[in-house]
Amino acid sequence: MKHKKQLFTPGPSNVPDPILEELSKDVIHHRMGDYKKILEDVTGKLKSVFKTSEDVLILTSSGTGAMESSIVNLFSKGDHVLVINTGNFGDRYIEIAEVFGLKVSSLKYEWGNTYSLAEVKQFLADNTDVKGILMTYHETSTGVLNDVKRIGELTKDTDTLLITDCISGMIVHPFEFDQWNVDCAVASSQKGFLLPPGISFVSISKKAQKQMERSNLPKYYWDYKKYYDYLKKGQPPFTPAIQLIVGLNKALTYILEKGVTTINTEKQELRTYTEERFKEIGFTLFIEDESIRGNVLVPVVPTNKDLDIKKLTKILDETYDLSVSKGQGQYVTKMLRIGILSEIGKDDIDDLIGKIKAIV
Amino acid sequence: MKHKKQLFTPGPSNVPDPILEELSKDVIHHRMGDYKKILEDVTGKLKSVFKTSEDVLILTSSGTGAMESSIVNLFSKGDHVLVINTGNFGDRYIEIAEVFGLKVSSLKYEWGNTYSLAEVKQFLADNTDVKGILMTYHETSTGVLNDVKRIGELTKDTDTLLITDCISGMIVHPFEFDQWNVDCAVASSQKGFLLPPGISFVSISKKAQKQMERSNLPKYYWDYKKYYDYLKKGQPPFTPAIQLIVGLNKALTYILEKGVTTINTEKQELRTYTEERFKEIGFTLFIEDESIRGNVLVPVVPTNKDLDIKKLTKILDETYDLSVSKGQGQYVTKMLRIGILSEIGKDDIDDLIGKIKAIV
Repeated sequence: MKHKKQLFTPGPSNVPDPILEELSKDVIHHRMGDYKKILEDVTGKLKSVFKTSEDVLILTSSGTGAMESSIVNLFSKGDHVLVINTGNFGDRYIEIAEVFGLKVSSLKYEWGNTYSLAEVKQFLADNTDVKGILMTYHETSTGVLNDVKRIGELTKDTDTLLITDCISGMIVHPFEFDQWNVDCAVASSQKGFLLPPGISFVSISKKAQKQMERSNLPKYYWDYKKYYDYLKKGQPPFTPAIQLIVGLNKALTYILEKGVTTINTEKQELRTYTEERFKEIGFTLFIEDESIRGNVLVPVVPTNKDLDIKKLTKILDETYDLSVSKGQGQYVTKMLRIGILSEIGKDDIDDLIGKIKAIV
Repeated sequence: MKHKKQLFTPGPSNVPDPILEELSKDVIHHRMGDYKKILEDVTGKLKSVFKTSEDVLILTSSGTGAMESSIVNLFSKGDHVLVINTGNFGDRYIEIAEVFGLKVSSLKYEWGNTYSLAEVKQFLADNTDVKGILMTYHETSTGVLNDVKRIGELTKDTDTLLITDCISGMIVHPFEFDQWNVDCAVASSQKGFLLPPGISFVSISKKAQKQMERSNLPKYYWDYKKYYDYLKKGQPPFTPAIQLIVGLNKALTYILEKGVTTINTEKQELRTYTEERFKEIGFTLFIEDESIRGNVLVPVVPTNKDLDIKKLTKILDETYDLSVSKGQGQYVTKMLRIGILSEIGKDDIDDLIGKIKAIV
């Protein structure tokens, strides 16, 4: 156990000490040469992580802010969009799109399931006015990984944009912005990026950049054009969370040196290990289909229906300094979501298993 | 000199080491008990700093995001607002309000001057439909401190809201949210708060909270109602910049123990000292009227018109690790803005003076 409090939560997660130490370095100024160099560095490294030839923009906001930015930059009032809704963060994209006056249709799936490709195809055939598809790559409320690539094949040669909330999905799963024909991908620092929360990342395809021109929704802080304009000067349009961007540079170096593919594999192994260990102590896996289980968290349900999840997580947190997430929505008292992001190994899982056995 | 690079910039500024160290502590989770305690602590301390009985909301964004939030929460499309414009950040409030479809009138003053109270009074008499006055407390582009209290006396018993950008003004100048009848005050971490950038603060009067109910502008990430609702549970609505909020707790303790009034006095003395030292080496003060000079930065203009400000700041930054801000707008090549926020003493000013003398 490397940290006083071990976070088994699907973001934020424990940040490696060498990256944390970057945050306490002297503040540099965002309009000076030192920052310009770092902004160039991180932009280049983010492009490698997103697998894109387009610049990746950095916003000072949580992931929700970045989701909002994708709506207000790429659509206009009354635009028809389809949300592929597989959980809480699908709901969130619906809420944001509705607040900004889009016409929102959704295909809703039971928690723990992914979407039906046939239904999406049918919807698009029946609704030729659809300007965009909004989907969650990894759905943090359920642990489901939705196939983005297959949707990109549908929107590829059309005018429909594919907007993906990759906030928890990126880095711990394969992601190919250009290859998969994604038009906008949103990510956030506190998930696979080995950082604390506070900044978010957005990439935009050429096709989506064209749509920016016709968007009539009001925006100022989120206005991508400002970010592109300033990026040419090596600057951000507004004062950014400087310490986090300095930390990001270190984190991305670590991630790229290790290799995103290696991280994918390691996390998948840890996920399988965690699943097995929890099955041994009286839990069942929430997601039946192995092929859609993500590497961010392991959602499990106790076989003993009387087990008080709220009490269990409280004891783990307050007595043992182990923070484990409960379920969301209707599963708040019925599910554990064991986050495995960042600095967590099999020994940490063993430790957690031991503590849970002692409690229940 | 306590820092490798000394920032003589009007935010961000050098952060004291004990506060910086807080940023590299282990990440805690924003839905767990530890965070709840910190959120309660910082909210209480922010109320003391803002001098208000209302809760102060914390946004993960730069100050501009918080300015935008005040517009979208308190006004509706077509609402008539008056911007008291004394510089770059007055311009910014105009731009944001226009983007969101408000009807914007402005009273514009020459850079280096404050507003005319008689003109504001006359404007309000001629325009009884004005829903809000937007004004900058300390204008960072010019160094001018605008009297907020006098405007609060005008809006006090009316339906007109007084919205103040106090981003650079707070803590280094007296500020009384309740006493001065301010309806919304916006501040940001990287100015007087002894922190790096990344989070902002907003307080809203009862009168303004009523106006929130009628506002029809679209908002999701900025929606104050969400922040109020979650605050009751001791949580933020969206994942916040946790490290900065932990650091904020330490910074506010320091500020309140020292006393905001003491900080005001110290900064005013340092400002006067800096003015005198720069006059000795061939600079004149940009702001003639002593009563409107703020304590954030000292704007000076060289008497030698041929002095290359761009070259001077470049040498200071790259050769001596001293970052000094140039002017903004039309003064970019004509003015130095010596930021005196945070950890700067007379010895640092002396050192800067020595380096400038050696260069010019």
